[in-house]
Amino acid sequence: MQVRVEKDTMGPIEVPADKYWGAQTQRSKENFTIGGQQMPKEVIEAFAILKKSAAQANAQLGVLAQDKADIISQVCDEILEGKLADEFPLVVWQTGSGTQSNMNVNEVVANRAHVLLGGNLLDEKKKIHPNDDVNKSQSSNDTFPTAMHIAAYKKVVEHTLPLVQKLRDTLNSKAEQFMDVVKIGRTHLMDATPLTLGQELSGYVAQLDYGMKALRNTLPHLSTLALGGSAVGTGLNTPAGYDVLVAEKISKYAGHEFITAPNKFEALAAHDAIVETSGALKQLAVALMKIANDIRLLASGPRSGIAEILIPENEPGSSIMPGKVNPTQAEAMTMVCAQVIGNDVAISVGGMNGHFELNVFKPVMIYNLLMSAQLIGDACDSFDKHCAVGIEPNTERIKHNLENSLMLVTALNPHIGYDNAAKIAKKAHKEGTTLRQAAIDLGLLTNEQFDEWVRPEDMIGSLKK
Amino acid sequence: MQVRVEKDTMGPIEVPADKYWGAQTQRSKENFTIGGQQMPKEVIEAFAILKKSAAQANAQLGVLAQDKADIISQVCDEILEGKLADEFPLVVWQTGSGTQSNMNVNEVVANRAHVLLGGNLLDEKKKIHPNDDVNKSQSSNDTFPTAMHIAAYKKVVEHTLPLVQKLRDTLNSKAEQFMDVVKIGRTHLMDATPLTLGQELSGYVAQLDYGMKALRNTLPHLSTLALGGSAVGTGLNTPAGYDVLVAEKISKYAGHEFITAPNKFEALAAHDAIVETSGALKQLAVALMKIANDIRLLASGPRSGIAEILIPENEPGSSIMPGKVNPTQAEAMTMVCAQVIGNDVAISVGGMNGHFELNVFKPVMIYNLLMSAQLIGDACDSFDKHCAVGIEPNTERIKHNLENSLMLVTALNPHIGYDNAAKIAKKAHKEGTTLRQAAIDLGLLTNEQFDEWVRPEDMIGSLKK
Amino acid sequence: MQVRVEKDTMGPIEVPADKYWGAQTQRSKENFTIGGQQMPKEVIEAFAILKKSAAQANAQLGVLAQDKADIISQVCDEILEGKLADEFPLVVWQTGSGTQSNMNVNEVVANRAHVLLGGNLLDEKKKIHPNDDVNKSQSSNDTFPTAMHIAAYKKVVEHTLPLVQKLRDTLNSKAEQFMDVVKIGRTHLMDATPLTLGQELSGYVAQLDYGMKALRNTLPHLSTLALGGSAVGTGLNTPAGYDVLVAEKISKYAGHEFITAPNKFEALAAHDAIVETSGALKQLAVALMKIANDIRLLASGPRSGIAEILIPENEPGSSIMPGKVNPTQAEAMTMVCAQVIGNDVAISVGGMNGHFELNVFKPVMIYNLLMSAQLIGDACDSFDKHCAVGIEPNTERIKHNLENSLMLVTALNPHIGYDNAAKIAKKAHKEGTTLRQAAIDLGLLTNEQFDEWVRPEDMIGSLKK
Amino acid sequence: MQVRVEKDTMGPIEVPADKYWGAQTQRSKENFTIGGQQMPKEVIEAFAILKKSAAQANAQLGVLAQDKADIISQVCDEILEGKLADEFPLVVWQTGSGTQSNMNVNEVVANRAHVLLGGNLLDEKKKIHPNDDVNKSQSSNDTFPTAMHIAAYKKVVEHTLPLVQKLRDTLNSKAEQFMDVVKIGRTHLMDATPLTLGQELSGYVAQLDYGMKALRNTLPHLSTLALGGSAVGTGLNTPAGYDVLVAEKISKYAGHEFITAPNKFEALAAHDAIVETSGALKQLAVALMKIANDIRLLASGPRSGIAEILIPENEPGSSIMPGKVNPTQAEAMTMVCAQVIGNDVAISVGGMNGHFELNVFKPVMIYNLLMSAQLIGDACDSFDKHCAVGIEPNTERIKHNLENSLMLVTALNPHIGYDNAAKIAKKAHKEGTTLRQAAIDLGLLTNEQFDEWVRPEDMIGSLKK
Repeated sequence: MQVRVEKDTMGPIEVPADKYWGAQTQRSKENFTIGGQQMPKEVIEAFAILKKSAAQANAQLGVLAQDKADIISQVCDEILEGKLADEFPLVVWQTGSGTQSNMNVNEVVANRAHVLLGGNLLDEKKKIHPNDDVNKSQSSNDTFPTAMHIAAYKKVVEHTLPLVQKLRDTLNSKAEQFMDVVKIGRTHLMDATPLTLGQELSGYVAQLDYGMKALRNTLPHLSTLALGGSAVGTGLNTPAGYDVLVAEKISKYAGHEFITAPNKFEALAAHDAIVETSGALKQLAVALMKIANDIRLLASGPRSGIAEILIPENEPGSSIMPGKVNPTQAEAMTMVCAQVIGNDVAISVGGMNGHFELNVFKPVMIYNLLMSAQLIGDACDSFDKHCAVGIEPNTERIKHNLENSLMLVTALNPHIGYDNAAKIAKKAHKEGTTLRQAAIDLGLLTNEQFDEWVRPEDMIGSLKK
Repeated sequence: MQVRVEKDTMGPIEVPADKYWGAQTQRSKENFTIGGQQMPKEVIEAFAILKKSAAQANAQLGVLAQDKADIISQVCDEILEGKLADEFPLVVWQTGSGTQSNMNVNEVVANRAHVLLGGNLLDEKKKIHPNDDVNKSQSSNDTFPTAMHIAAYKKVVEHTLPLVQKLRDTLNSKAEQFMDVVKIGRTHLMDATPLTLGQELSGYVAQLDYGMKALRNTLPHLSTLALGGSAVGTGLNTPAGYDVLVAEKISKYAGHEFITAPNKFEALAAHDAIVETSGALKQLAVALMKIANDIRLLASGPRSGIAEILIPENEPGSSIMPGKVNPTQAEAMTMVCAQVIGNDVAISVGGMNGHFELNVFKPVMIYNLLMSAQLIGDACDSFDKHCAVGIEPNTERIKHNLENSLMLVTALNPHIGYDNAAKIAKKAHKEGTTLRQAAIDLGLLTNEQFDEWVRPEDMIGSLKK
Repeated sequence: MQVRVEKDTMGPIEVPADKYWGAQTQRSKENFTIGGQQMPKEVIEAFAILKKSAAQANAQLGVLAQDKADIISQVCDEILEGKLADEFPLVVWQTGSGTQSNMNVNEVVANRAHVLLGGNLLDEKKKIHPNDDVNKSQSSNDTFPTAMHIAAYKKVVEHTLPLVQKLRDTLNSKAEQFMDVVKIGRTHLMDATPLTLGQELSGYVAQLDYGMKALRNTLPHLSTLALGGSAVGTGLNTPAGYDVLVAEKISKYAGHEFITAPNKFEALAAHDAIVETSGALKQLAVALMKIANDIRLLASGPRSGIAEILIPENEPGSSIMPGKVNPTQAEAMTMVCAQVIGNDVAISVGGMNGHFELNVFKPVMIYNLLMSAQLIGDACDSFDKHCAVGIEPNTERIKHNLENSLMLVTALNPHIGYDNAAKIAKKAHKEGTTLRQAAIDLGLLTNEQFDEWVRPEDMIGSLKK
Repeated sequence: MQVRVEKDTMGPIEVPADKYWGAQTQRSKENFTIGGQQMPKEVIEAFAILKKSAAQANAQLGVLAQDKADIISQVCDEILEGKLADEFPLVVWQTGSGTQSNMNVNEVVANRAHVLLGGNLLDEKKKIHPNDDVNKSQSSNDTFPTAMHIAAYKKVVEHTLPLVQKLRDTLNSKAEQFMDVVKIGRTHLMDATPLTLGQELSGYVAQLDYGMKALRNTLPHLSTLALGGSAVGTGLNTPAGYDVLVAEKISKYAGHEFITAPNKFEALAAHDAIVETSGALKQLAVALMKIANDIRLLASGPRSGIAEILIPENEPGSSIMPGKVNPTQAEAMTMVCAQVIGNDVAISVGGMNGHFELNVFKPVMIYNLLMSAQLIGDACDSFDKHCAVGIEPNTERIKHNLENSLMLVTALNPHIGYDNAAKIAKKAHKEGTTLRQAAIDLGLLTNEQFDEWVRPEDMIGSLKK
């Protein structure tokens, strides 16, 4: 490998000749050969937005030459276009402030800008300095949490929420479509009074609506930016008005409304916003686990399960059992939910362990949050396309189950009382007969009364379609 | 023990002669000798509000005689006054629907009403029936989650939030009081640029503000009530208009605004509202862990720690080391935080495991949620009274640390650049000298420039008091 | 309330006149009004064993008069007999070292001994000093973790393991009893190739065997005692040979083999033994969750579920649905499992947060561990008695399901290949016919070949009874 | 992209012409575009060992031609040599049985073998069949858990344990080296009685020893293999003696001792072995969190922290504060610990949710376990090389802290009693004087007695080197 020598305050170090990164990136690469989980590209992209915004704000406030700001912005645009994707090799398991990824961006931007300005990577002195220019009016301590918020906000708003909404809409249209399909209810996994398939599905829709609301509730906290806090939150070495201005720039370039954090000390030392958003994603995971579990139980069979719904058959289900089809989308979904619930604990552990002016679990927190937000969105999309859209009632089975149900007896409570109704149900259960037979045998009501009172279609309340 | 015989649909069973509870309570008591954690009294009280509300709504809608409604209400008031505290012996680890606690309340209310109406517990037939009267227009499946929401809402609004607010206000007044106390900052636990003690504390205030906001965000979901959903969410055996009316009654008797759940299927089958509120309590736990940790670290010493603040000495700290004083309130607080974070996982596991029309982890979910809400409130109160109010700066130590700090060098970045500033800091560190000495030895600036540029009081940004 | 004045190094304080506890207990009671969870009685009992052992070891080593040791021992025996149960009022949420509970025991033992020796609680000077006598050669820092280990070890060995074993034995005898009951298997919740009910149950037995093995694996670590480490692990103020001798005394009085910890610094500063044991309890919770879930799914119905087994009907299942019976023991069990999994996280958070020579999450760790160990034992006992012993196959349903199964086709793989077998299964599924019909229609085999090759009773491997 | 058409029982599908995988792999690729986390390569390698072992066992038992077994083995060797790394594109979030990854391996092996035997990928009929030959005597349901155990066992034994041991050995040699360096102890973060730096470090060594022991305790369960259980655990379509023989082959090819699972039903339906191993990794994470936290606290400063040890300076610590050096290895380590603790919860959620004959959270469980095992090993290695080896005492600071300590007063307990000793400490603390001065002022002892009794070097117990 061809190398060149780069220097930082620790001294010289060899870096690959064809890479833009500098000494601090290289040191991190060598000092942290842990796992292989790279700093998420969403964080790098957020940094590109941030560095461009900071450069322009610095220029506007007169602390950075406009031409320097412009060349920095140009490199940031290249990053956003994916042109420099190989230049960010660092892993999550580095310094807990993310300083090394901040410096990775600073170095790549400075060196690439130097080259764009006609310089050579071997030049001793570069036209753009990674700290004094690219990192101007910044500290890792305020940039990294800012990048965390930008990346998380964008992921939630652009990816997670729309895809949860899509699944929710499919389930809602299914709920409307099947609002008249009366079926047996189940509580404690045991036969209960009837409801419609549409009603059952409407509960899932409500869960997702609540989940999305909870997730949206976390956005205001995510929209506050640490930038301007500098090293410890005081704004040292930043020009007056910078924090507000740079948040405006970021809003413009990111396409979402961000504001400067009202308290920068919180914004550096705590990442409760990440904990908060993860908590909402965890709530969605809990909801989706319930929904996917129900759907696979309802589809279980084909002959010896519940089998009240049919779901799409997407692939052969078994390497040994010919013809087997499995609820694989529900399985992928529930595995994702398990992961998100675990990630939430990792984020809590990170969030609780800040010290004084800095939390140094930043990379692990954003890594887990982005993974959770990505997975929830992707899994909803996959489950929607490959499963939910194809849900159909298995009418014959639904009818059979309903007609056999002993819990229709509940309709008799207002007429003959709970205790008498119980006698009927117990007798029918014990003797394997129908409720009607048991009721008449017990002399508690007539055939006609049974017909009048026990009507599944009257036991399902008023339907909203 | 004196006994009498009670009956339910399973047959006769002996119960203590001096207790109001009936057969189903007794069966649960005998069938579930697990742990000792009793159904929280807040749930029983919520049931009292609920049963009274349901009785009055039933009467108003003409499905229950008014005198029956009134005697039921009278017993409910007795429960709320604590007069029947020994009548609810069941544990958390019972049926997952809480049916047995619902029946415990039904039985106690019916039997106590019977006695108030002049009856005798030995009477074969009671004037009030636990199912047909007290449980009228209800099912365990909609009453228990309603009681969960009432209990949780009240606990959060009446207990947790005010006590977090109290601690927050104390910290805020301390922040204002110490807004001018310039001290060294610390990032990565290492000396960093200065800030004031007030600024440091203001970060904690912001954390608690965000945490309370997150907690308040969960109240709308908690304020929706399952009641009226009946057995599976369809409202079977409930009169028209009952769900809305009963929510109004509950609002009146509970003293908080509740509404009927727009989707009853969700309200029975999922408890994402509990998951949501627990998530916010967990966020507060994460915040409080950070705050309490910081405070004990700042108070560490007295001689070989950081010792920048003094906290109240409340008790002897050691059974062997004479004169030792420890940050015990911080310890109680952080233990509470550990518990709340664990409880959140228990709640998630419960929340994810509902099936079809019912989640049967109701008791474990509300048990953990109430514990978390109680503990966060209590611990904030205790920490406030016995620690936060007494926080004082250790001025001498603060001054000494500040003056020795190498990170004041950061103020030189705009004047001599990052790389030169680094040389000064490294030289001073290596030689154990002052920054001034190192700067002058290196010839990078003059005495006068040092005086002009390195001023801790100018490094702390603008103060908000 | 009658009071008397007690003193400690902080000064005088009023305590209830009729209680033996002293100033430090009282201070803790007043300074920590948090939650209501009392220090577990198992910890107090472990302290009684410990104090007696320490007194006798001190006497034997000549640093405490034998008569003092004997009167201390006498009071410890009273504690173990439950005679002083009202003397330990402190809650879990106190100082994280448990110092206050250690002092609670020291004070009660000293004052009670003083009275037994003819003294009066109002005497200025007591015949036995809580620190200099009862706490002789001890520190809270080594006594509390020792009490944790004694309490945890006893609970696991005397309670948890025997009760898990009892459930395991019941399941094993059921497995043997039903070893010939051929039934349909289910993978992905979908019909699969057959196995016997006994085989299915044998998997649960294996899970519990592995779980108990994992739990037993943690006992050696639990059996190591911190006592003798004194304040920071160095053994300051303890006589030579004391640590080994006191572990022998504890072994004798506790009835289990304990040894002195080979490294006392670990024993004070970390509680990985508690983390380890909790991890094994969590594994058992994971196993029991699976087992209880399976059993309620197998028992689901009675008519529209899987209904392949019958479980005992212990109580009415619904306050609205007459005659309903639910798998309530499975529900209590799975709620317990959720709690234990949450407790494990609380313990991990506590365990990870020790600092230097002491972990100050001791009370929350032992509180959660004892709860988990108690609950797992109790829930296994309850599930065993009220559910497992009564499991019976629903022969008719089992037979019906088996005969209808499409997955019997798997037996044809070796004869006609996977792809042809799949054609048969798919055709039968699509047309709602039998495998036989589909196979013959496709011309892939004869009636005779079907009879010879598709034999459920030959598809279940060799049975071990 | 060039494509060819492959077929499975669902019909034809286009796959990339230059890839060996077949229809089922392609379907999974298209149906599960979730996240980007690929099935870990360790699982693919374990499959290669497994397929080779199965082929050879099948041949030896006469159910597969030896030449087929040999060509299958040859392809497996190619996989192990990394030659087919691009052929396994599937993600973790697929079917929960891992069927699709099993089929991915089956298809690649079959097609590659066909080519090696001179065939062409476009041939209608291949010389080796993915199901009938490569998957002979197997099901996904027994192969995937077998691959999980092989992969996990190898990772723990070949990677995690040796690297934890390496860090443990470094800490142990440091402990021995600094066994005489007397320093102040700290409990509750407050100054306490002295110990030596070596003793302090020895506690970490003990933690790692216990953690490794706990991890090794899980290996017997991991060493049991599901293979031979076939679809549901009964061993359907496997020849007699196959399960034992194939475990022998796997032991031989994997280089570790594996045995056939005594109960195959447990081995398919539950993954408590994975839960168990994850629990031990979590214990190590808890231990490493404590150790890394201590080390960064001990190294905190350089001037206003504790600063009793020095650790290597590996990189510039701040993008804004010149000359700053941070404990970055401790940060990477503690972030890893947070992840492992979260992963453990994800694994528990997966482990608890099996149904009947199959757990369908297999991929998410092994993904998290391998990540945890990899990260713990890597982080220990990194922390060892870049931090632990360079730990040095800051002798001057240690001496200064020790001499100032008030807790040396504890040495006076046996001479003047706890209460008098407390008076001395409190007076010295209040007046900012030395213990000696306070003691003499109080008239409690003489100068000579102080010299004789208060000797830090006598307060540290007996040292083991």
